[in-house]
Amino acid sequence: MISQEELKLVFGLVRIKSISTQEEYLGEMVRARDYLKKIFEDLGTCLPAGRFEVEYLKGEKHDLVLATRIEDPKLPTVLIYGHYDVQPPEPIDEWQSPPFEPEIREGMIYGRGTTDNKCQLMTHVLAVKRMIEKDGRLPVNIKFLIEGEEEVGSVSIEKIVAEHGDKMRGDYLIVSDLDMADDGRPAITVGLKGIVYVEVYLKTAKHDLHSGVYGGVAENPAIVMAGVLTKLKDEEGKVLIPGFYDGVVGLSDEEKADYQKMEPTEEALREEGVTVLGGGEKNFGINERRWARPTLDVNGWLSGYIGEGAKTIIPAETRVKLSMRLVPNQEPEKIAKLTEDYIRTLVPEGSILEVKVLAKCWPYKADTSLPIFGVAKEVMERAFGKKTVYIGCGGSIGFVPVVAKKLGVPVLLLGLGLPGDNMHAPNERFKLENMDKGIEAFGELYGKIK
Amino acid sequence: MISQEELKLVFGLVRIKSISTQEEYLGEMVRARDYLKKIFEDLGTCLPAGRFEVEYLKGEKHDLVLATRIEDPKLPTVLIYGHYDVQPPEPIDEWQSPPFEPEIREGMIYGRGTTDNKCQLMTHVLAVKRMIEKDGRLPVNIKFLIEGEEEVGSVSIEKIVAEHGDKMRGDYLIVSDLDMADDGRPAITVGLKGIVYVEVYLKTAKHDLHSGVYGGVAENPAIVMAGVLTKLKDEEGKVLIPGFYDGVVGLSDEEKADYQKMEPTEEALREEGVTVLGGGEKNFGINERRWARPTLDVNGWLSGYIGEGAKTIIPAETRVKLSMRLVPNQEPEKIAKLTEDYIRTLVPEGSILEVKVLAKCWPYKADTSLPIFGVAKEVMERAFGKKTVYIGCGGSIGFVPVVAKKLGVPVLLLGLGLPGDNMHAPNERFKLENMDKGIEAFGELYGKIK
Repeated sequence: MISQEELKLVFGLVRIKSISTQEEYLGEMVRARDYLKKIFEDLGTCLPAGRFEVEYLKGEKHDLVLATRIEDPKLPTVLIYGHYDVQPPEPIDEWQSPPFEPEIREGMIYGRGTTDNKCQLMTHVLAVKRMIEKDGRLPVNIKFLIEGEEEVGSVSIEKIVAEHGDKMRGDYLIVSDLDMADDGRPAITVGLKGIVYVEVYLKTAKHDLHSGVYGGVAENPAIVMAGVLTKLKDEEGKVLIPGFYDGVVGLSDEEKADYQKMEPTEEALREEGVTVLGGGEKNFGINERRWARPTLDVNGWLSGYIGEGAKTIIPAETRVKLSMRLVPNQEPEKIAKLTEDYIRTLVPEGSILEVKVLAKCWPYKADTSLPIFGVAKEVMERAFGKKTVYIGCGGSIGFVPVVAKKLGVPVLLLGLGLPGDNMHAPNERFKLENMDKGIEAFGELYGKIK
Repeated sequence: MISQEELKLVFGLVRIKSISTQEEYLGEMVRARDYLKKIFEDLGTCLPAGRFEVEYLKGEKHDLVLATRIEDPKLPTVLIYGHYDVQPPEPIDEWQSPPFEPEIREGMIYGRGTTDNKCQLMTHVLAVKRMIEKDGRLPVNIKFLIEGEEEVGSVSIEKIVAEHGDKMRGDYLIVSDLDMADDGRPAITVGLKGIVYVEVYLKTAKHDLHSGVYGGVAENPAIVMAGVLTKLKDEEGKVLIPGFYDGVVGLSDEEKADYQKMEPTEEALREEGVTVLGGGEKNFGINERRWARPTLDVNGWLSGYIGEGAKTIIPAETRVKLSMRLVPNQEPEKIAKLTEDYIRTLVPEGSILEVKVLAKCWPYKADTSLPIFGVAKEVMERAFGKKTVYIGCGGSIGFVPVVAKKLGVPVLLLGLGLPGDNMHAPNERFKLENMDKGIEAFGELYGKIK
């Protein structure tokens, strides 16, 4: 059971309004870093063994906290990633209790940043704290890297890893910033998708044209773009960009079986708002499409007159936001180039075409053949009392592929959140029991790392 | 030559700020009607023969002026249509002389509403005035119907024709509210296109969805709509809506030859802003496509996130403005229904599809086999010294098809404007010489009508 003292540490962190997107909370961001620093420095001060060294790594907007405790250079080193920044709490009216006054109701801790990511991060901190208090020492060297820019796109990660990669080196990276499979069922997330997000701009006339005077004579950029779009995916949902699937890695049998085990029903998807199913590769299961197959979507489309009523123009231009979710070993830069090259073959001569990359992120896929994955499955299973499954994730965590790639370290994604935890929404929460069981599982895991 | 007294009448009308779209000019609209009424009542008052009876017909926003002079019930009756309302003059800064202070520079009368439509209308008025002053009588009965709502979509026309159709009856309708073929070359416009303008709304999810969580599983409405659009026209530019071309009437040999005579070069179209030519039926000439073939265009398209940067959503919905320019004998209502029925077969089950008609107008096509067209060609040719050609128009004049249809009267569209007259733009103008020659041509035309 979590003690009152432990809970007080967690609540103290949740109370800090560490909203990274808004300049007025810069002071709160500083407070959050100092609060974490103090927690680490207080750990085991009265004991003979080592202690955490804490430093701040300069981020573009907000610094990272790096806390390192080298127990013995010969022991393996675990790098634990988390983030101390949170999303803005708006709309405030929809919260049942104030977002920065944590409160427990029916076994749930409510507050902004509970599941994302303060409670999950603190589960690791408390696991370490308990071990130090119990044994006076840790079975492994531990490094905590706690970011303050996760909610603003992890803008400094590449630079930080390039500059401070050596300080961050470890044998395993452990991240708890995701969900479990469902309430009570532990999961290891074995894949994160990458992304290439582009804006495609097409111009076919100097200015908007009168649709009466030029209809049938001037090309219509929205119709040309519609033609382009239908040539990006076929009727079976397969992406038609030449070279798009080059290097795509399949799932292991165990992963595939686990993904199928967690397959949602169409009814469940409808309840989540998906009225019309489709758009993906028809030959793959729902979870395989979501978690392990690359996808392509239009995120936005603008052309011509979109106000009230009728305006009889042929638009001069159109602008489409288009993104592709990637899987290993697709390379974001290469996919962006293939996409642009292909689209260029689909637009008529004389058009002005621009393809601008707005965002990109590498995909990540765990190598589950490593023994550590079996160990992690076991400790989670023991703590939660239910078989651990491998799941995937259609989204991205910018930090993970960068660190996994640059440091060449295996990553364990051990999410403790639940699908109903209202991440980024009002009444964000975290299940207290998951913290309790997480502390147990993580303690056992650290002890078993060799 | 135009006399100073005649020019004074024209300038007086241009000076009135009869802007129909803005409520603050309601008083100016009244002034314009009263000004016209006085012109007609003053015509031939000192002569023994008949005079113009003037009445106002109640319009939804602005009344119409109907001026009737029955010379002899046994004579044919000519109905002349024009409009006294004008577009707002903004942007004022771009005018070289104040928009409502008419001024002649290099043979052009500058002022808002000169070419559209006050000078063209006054050319008919002055032709009638000169005949009365010369002969004391007119060779035909004349009715002027002068609208005040042309620039606000001729909103009352259907109602006015239904209520007052009998008063408007005539043997010919003459309209001068268009351009000549080019400077110096007279033209009879033999076709106006109709239009059906719809908004197509498609919804495939309850709300925007996370493109990572639902990519590959949820249908994307923008991509579905792109598929719909590519099925509306084939690669050859032919519209694929079943039944779309039913009843489409071709051109006479003379019309076809004249259209080809006026064919613009691709270079000329590029100078007008058409960077990429295309979108129409490849088997037809440029003018035939613009003036005599139905066309289909996207006028606007909105879906998802169109702000700065990247937002990773699968949009819940998309909204496309789509219009078809029609030719005889396509029926707007029927085409709207065929379009909706066809699109309905192209969207996946479970979608919400709405097709809303935003605007519609009948097409118009003159029967140039009637002798009056030969007469009109001749009189225009004699006045302008150049062979008159038949041209078409890709746009619509709401009044024409309604009156032509309801009253079953042949329409002569004798435009005196020029392509460079800046209709609806700053520095609107009208060539003084065209008024002079128009008075001559119209006078001769009235004399020849039997």
